[in-house]
Amino acid sequence: MESMMIYSPVVLAVIGLLYMWVKRSWVLKQDAGDGKMKEISDHIYEGALAFLNAEYKLLAIFVVIVSIALAVVSFIVPTTHWLIVIAFIFGAFFSALAGNMGMKIATKTNVRTTQAARTSLPNALKISFGGGTVMGLGVAGLAVLGLTLFFIFFFNFFMGSVWTSTADMTVVLETLAGFSLGAESIALFARVGGGIYTKAADVGADLVGKVEAGIPEDDPRNPATIADNVGDNVGDVAGMGADLFGSYVATVLAAMVLGNYVIKDMGGNISDAFGGIGPILLPMAIAGAGIIISVIGTMLVKISSNDAKESQVMRALNIGNWVSIGLVAASCFALVKWMLPETMQMEFFGEGLKEISSIRVFAATIVGLIVGGAISSVTEYYTGLGKRPILKIVEKSSTGAGTNIIAGLATGMISTFPSILLFASAIWASYAFAGFYGVALAASAMMATTAMQLAIDAFGPISDNAGGIAEMSEQDPIVRERTDILDSVGNTTAATGKGFAIASAALTSLALFAAYVTFTGIDGINIFKAPVLAMLFVGGMIPVVFSALAMNAVGKAAMEMVQEVRRQFKTIPGIMEGTGKPEYDKCVAISTQASLKEMMLPGLLTIGFPLVITFVPMLFGMNSRTIAEMLGGYMAGVTVSGVLWAIFQNNAGGAWDNAKKSFEAGVMINGEMTYKGSEAHKAAVTGDTVGDPFKDTSGPSMNILIKLTCLIGLVIAPILGGHTLEEGATEPVGTHIESVNETSKQVEVEMTSEGEETIAKVRVITTENGNTNVEVKTFKGSKAEVEKEISKL
Amino acid sequence: MESMMIYSPVVLAVIGLLYMWVKRSWVLKQDAGDGKMKEISDHIYEGALAFLNAEYKLLAIFVVIVSIALAVVSFIVPTTHWLIVIAFIFGAFFSALAGNMGMKIATKTNVRTTQAARTSLPNALKISFGGGTVMGLGVAGLAVLGLTLFFIFFFNFFMGSVWTSTADMTVVLETLAGFSLGAESIALFARVGGGIYTKAADVGADLVGKVEAGIPEDDPRNPATIADNVGDNVGDVAGMGADLFGSYVATVLAAMVLGNYVIKDMGGNISDAFGGIGPILLPMAIAGAGIIISVIGTMLVKISSNDAKESQVMRALNIGNWVSIGLVAASCFALVKWMLPETMQMEFFGEGLKEISSIRVFAATIVGLIVGGAISSVTEYYTGLGKRPILKIVEKSSTGAGTNIIAGLATGMISTFPSILLFASAIWASYAFAGFYGVALAASAMMATTAMQLAIDAFGPISDNAGGIAEMSEQDPIVRERTDILDSVGNTTAATGKGFAIASAALTSLALFAAYVTFTGIDGINIFKAPVLAMLFVGGMIPVVFSALAMNAVGKAAMEMVQEVRRQFKTIPGIMEGTGKPEYDKCVAISTQASLKEMMLPGLLTIGFPLVITFVPMLFGMNSRTIAEMLGGYMAGVTVSGVLWAIFQNNAGGAWDNAKKSFEAGVMINGEMTYKGSEAHKAAVTGDTVGDPFKDTSGPSMNILIKLTCLIGLVIAPILGGHTLEEGATEPVGTHIESVNETSKQVEVEMTSEGEETIAKVRVITTENGNTNVEVKTFKGSKAEVEKEISKL
Repeated sequence: MESMMIYSPVVLAVIGLLYMWVKRSWVLKQDAGDGKMKEISDHIYEGALAFLNAEYKLLAIFVVIVSIALAVVSFIVPTTHWLIVIAFIFGAFFSALAGNMGMKIATKTNVRTTQAARTSLPNALKISFGGGTVMGLGVAGLAVLGLTLFFIFFFNFFMGSVWTSTADMTVVLETLAGFSLGAESIALFARVGGGIYTKAADVGADLVGKVEAGIPEDDPRNPATIADNVGDNVGDVAGMGADLFGSYVATVLAAMVLGNYVIKDMGGNISDAFGGIGPILLPMAIAGAGIIISVIGTMLVKISSNDAKESQVMRALNIGNWVSIGLVAASCFALVKWMLPETMQMEFFGEGLKEISSIRVFAATIVGLIVGGAISSVTEYYTGLGKRPILKIVEKSSTGAGTNIIAGLATGMISTFPSILLFASAIWASYAFAGFYGVALAASAMMATTAMQLAIDAFGPISDNAGGIAEMSEQDPIVRERTDILDSVGNTTAATGKGFAIASAALTSLALFAAYVTFTGIDGINIFKAPVLAMLFVGGMIPVVFSALAMNAVGKAAMEMVQEVRRQFKTIPGIMEGTGKPEYDKCVAISTQASLKEMMLPGLLTIGFPLVITFVPMLFGMNSRTIAEMLGGYMAGVTVSGVLWAIFQNNAGGAWDNAKKSFEAGVMINGEMTYKGSEAHKAAVTGDTVGDPFKDTSGPSMNILIKLTCLIGLVIAPILGGHTLEEGATEPVGTHIESVNETSKQVEVEMTSEGEETIAKVRVITTENGNTNVEVKTFKGSKAEVEKEISKL
Repeated sequence: MESMMIYSPVVLAVIGLLYMWVKRSWVLKQDAGDGKMKEISDHIYEGALAFLNAEYKLLAIFVVIVSIALAVVSFIVPTTHWLIVIAFIFGAFFSALAGNMGMKIATKTNVRTTQAARTSLPNALKISFGGGTVMGLGVAGLAVLGLTLFFIFFFNFFMGSVWTSTADMTVVLETLAGFSLGAESIALFARVGGGIYTKAADVGADLVGKVEAGIPEDDPRNPATIADNVGDNVGDVAGMGADLFGSYVATVLAAMVLGNYVIKDMGGNISDAFGGIGPILLPMAIAGAGIIISVIGTMLVKISSNDAKESQVMRALNIGNWVSIGLVAASCFALVKWMLPETMQMEFFGEGLKEISSIRVFAATIVGLIVGGAISSVTEYYTGLGKRPILKIVEKSSTGAGTNIIAGLATGMISTFPSILLFASAIWASYAFAGFYGVALAASAMMATTAMQLAIDAFGPISDNAGGIAEMSEQDPIVRERTDILDSVGNTTAATGKGFAIASAALTSLALFAAYVTFTGIDGINIFKAPVLAMLFVGGMIPVVFSALAMNAVGKAAMEMVQEVRRQFKTIPGIMEGTGKPEYDKCVAISTQASLKEMMLPGLLTIGFPLVITFVPMLFGMNSRTIAEMLGGYMAGVTVSGVLWAIFQNNAGGAWDNAKKSFEAGVMINGEMTYKGSEAHKAAVTGDTVGDPFKDTSGPSMNILIKLTCLIGLVIAPILGGHTLEEGATEPVGTHIESVNETSKQVEVEMTSEGEETIAKVRVITTENGNTNVEVKTFKGSKAEVEKEISKL
């Protein structure tokens, strides 16, 4: 059983994908409604497909260019293997596949949800959530399947499927990082491109349709309305799918890298039932278990009453969610106990080796689950309807757009306080429990329910689309009311989902950051060195500029859309009377072209800066260790600033959105009930316009920006020293184990040379009746002398 | 001559203050106009005085509390001397005095400027700039005078005015840090309180007066109009005066601390004509020279034509400014050459000792001057009338407030790109030239023209007030036109002044940060340690939350103001017809009370957090070295994030302001000329409302937040190890110099004990015919053995 453990994530992923297929067939079998509905749904489907095809064509070029660059690097740098290119291409392909699958099922589910909503709210939820489930399981299943298969392949290719040394495993994992890099690169473009698309169409449709022409949202006379609905799918569904696919892969990978270093700290060799790689397999096992748990969780999401309100739907989702989180906690306990040695040695920077019991690793995973939940709650507080922050923004709307916007900005900014304190506590606690391996496993536990989270997230835009189709096909108002209940719950889950995404991305980045430090073999990142400090500043600036570029991109694309809609209103006869047919495809084309064009610059910024920081100083002959620290400082700057700006932008955007929504049911301002159409409501609409790119374009891109930055660092790491033999680097000369009955003695030696002198750091690990003792000794002198001393041990 | 150099800054400061006095008398002798003008001016003067008195009463309580706390600390911690309490009190007093003086002269100058503007623009400039000069020289003179006198006193008290050792000088400078702490604490409250005051009054006056009642700005019928004009003085004048006073002191102090460490790196002793403290005196000398240079610079600011336009006024200011910067460069060259040894040894972290020639120190000062100027230019580009970013915001105003605000936010965000790159280059280059001493001197050179900068800055609000008085006293429109020319130039100088302030504050913080690391005696700040990384996140969050609190405070205070103005409009008969007299004092009282109440929480946050980070882990028995690194991580987080948010907020606010102003002369949007009163203009006004607290409250507070945080760290530093003898700390056992003819040999010893073992780091510095050779040796063993080895050297 244990020796086959390496295959178990593959099996679990396949089970998840099979269940997904069954669910998918069930959804597709549902009634897709009558002619008009079907026609609109087909328009949306075709628009989304057109965008994805155009996007993939562009990304194929990108993948080819990066592959060539990686091939060149692997040709020049001896420690980088050419297989990284293959891993990169497959990572990119799987990520695109996951997004594509999700988008397809979402655009098929929307119309079926509308049709179901004509008769039954429980059925509508069942179908829309079913679509979300297909999406979630598809993404998670592909992530676990792809990553595990590549790991098995590289483990076999480089090590013959048998543990040899930490150094060899490092090569396996460095090559595997290519898969993650591919996934995350596609995610960046999918998120940013999709985010620009959806908001350009949304803002463009609103500015001319709602404001100038005075027709309602989703009115079929508005030429941009199809583009708007396509946007929901390419941004909120395909973009988010690629995003979480990338997160999932990166988190598991980072935990595996740090698991490898746990083995190193334990003397480079452990004997367990899992072929000596238990700590490396554990994150994959948790991910695999998470898929099955998510399947169970999704089964629990149901309501029975046709008159259910938002709160009942929310409760159904919460039950599914909390049960999955509970099950993840239980399975983490079992897996940690089963797969890890009872006690481990871990190197704590500046504090030396520590004995860590496996129960502490479990504690770290619990930290991840608690903080993930807590950050989602904080997000819900700051963006939730009826909560104090929203009520304050509503109140400030009475004195105009200016005060509404100040209040929204301030809410987003204040919300960083509890979020960052929680997040800092998570770093601290999970590190205190089990070092950076603990941090990585906290992230892994948080991400284990990705499939469930995605199902909850994706059902929102599906319901939103279902409402749009109901409106456009002129259904009975009760249909729209039912989809609106689902949509409104979807807005809340979208906000908490963003909280979850940024929390997991941040922990993942930290784990990648730790992996980076170990890959480069530097002593740490000392910001008291001026060049490192300078890079901390530069890194901190990147998320700010990235956000600005994304916001400007939305503005530009929206302007083009506005002009096209105005043109159609003017030139197409009978369009306002419903007799002339708007040219939907022109608007779809504008959104597509504009978003593809505008995603270039932010993408270039993200990928280019780490390369410039690495290679420009290299050309000037700077020491590669210093460059490694500088790049580390840059990564830390991007992460800290990126997390702050993500929380700020997501929460401010969510708060404005719900402040505007509050007017639909009416709000009390200065003792007077105020409704839609009032001056205060207009101010709130302005706030929402500002919030749109915040929460749907720039804010969610921050996750990918920080993860991709850290991944690029990880891929560059071997170039910056790592386990090469240049200038004062460390040469592992091997490990020999002597085992006598119950007592085992293990001597690990690391030799460094400085000029003529050889320095040997020796770790003597003796185990006697389950007690482990570690002695660290250092020898200096000529190589012969040192070797003589070591032989005495 | 050389031996008296320590007194020269005192002399130069006194000369500056004398010139200030002459200028002040001249300004006060000018015609203060007729009855109505004088009455209004008196109202403003009394309002400002009332605020400052209320503020000082509150701050006196604060000073007493902090003094007691400092006294307790100095009682418990052996390395902290009680004299720090005295230094703190005087620092606070001098800072308050500087702000008070500036405010008084500004409120006397405004009406005289109005009076002069009735006949002559050149005279109006001469008077308003004269008032600014008085303010600038007062602040700079007091800063140099106070700091130098305390230094002389402590140097005498602790060392008998004779160089003994780096450790003794460290005690002198640690005690002197109290002066800087006092100055910066007052600056925080003055800036934040003043910032809240001015914007609450401004926004409140506009919302009811301009928007609801439809009366023009500064109309005497508006009860909040006096409060609005008082606000200009307490925020832009007194607040900024205290801010730059604090910066000036902190910069010079940080450079002195690092100068002391240069002496340490050179073996703990140098022989120069300045009593062996040349590197410590240099920053004071530069500051002293800067005062005289500023006097010269201010003399050059004049125009001759009564029909001059903005560009001529701007040119006059630029001439004065550039000449002073040129003179500072020249005097830096002379002073560096004269006061520093021809070559120095400086310890570069991780790279060991390096030989640094004095010309490299000069190069570092030039870096400071160039980058200071370049960052001001960047600011001018992003916020200047007629520049591309402003034109884009104007264009986006045509589609409503939402797009205007997105464009403004994006402009502020994008502006961090060149600013941060410049700033990172400055860190890098000045450090590469002369280590952290170079960074500190770059900041010192930048700050040398503080008096000139303040004169340029302060003349803006004076002219703004003069315009207000012209309006309220119903002068001939030509008077307002003339003051508007000055005011408009003042808006540009205000923006560039903020760029200058943040650049200097950031460099100062870095120098303080470096001083902190040396004070605590830690090896650096390694963000690969999880608790340090966690604190980097927490530090990064503080400026964001601080800004939000400041913005909310403005919102709350403005709301109170709105209600009061509405009440007066309703209840005072004949107020709108000009027959009923508005109760100006009620509005002044509201602004005063609200701003004092609302400045508490941000202040508490700034001062409380570093204390919590230090003392809570201490209570739990955490290693003080780890705490020192954590606090360092926190400081770095605050600095990086604070600089980013300062640039973002200042530039976004400035850009919105000028986008709005562009409509006054008319702008071309989509081929149509658009003016004040258009829909696009209304959108721009909304943007400006959002920008007001950004650029005048939260943005400029960032400077003080980062400096004060680093200063608190510096004052805490001795508690966190420093030169105490706890756990593995370093005990300096002294230095002995043997000098034989032209050859001198110097042996510096630092002993550390780890358990039984003693480790001695020995630096042997031999100088022969001007060539210096440094050998570093390490001995380990019992104390007796080690001492024996050392005696052989």
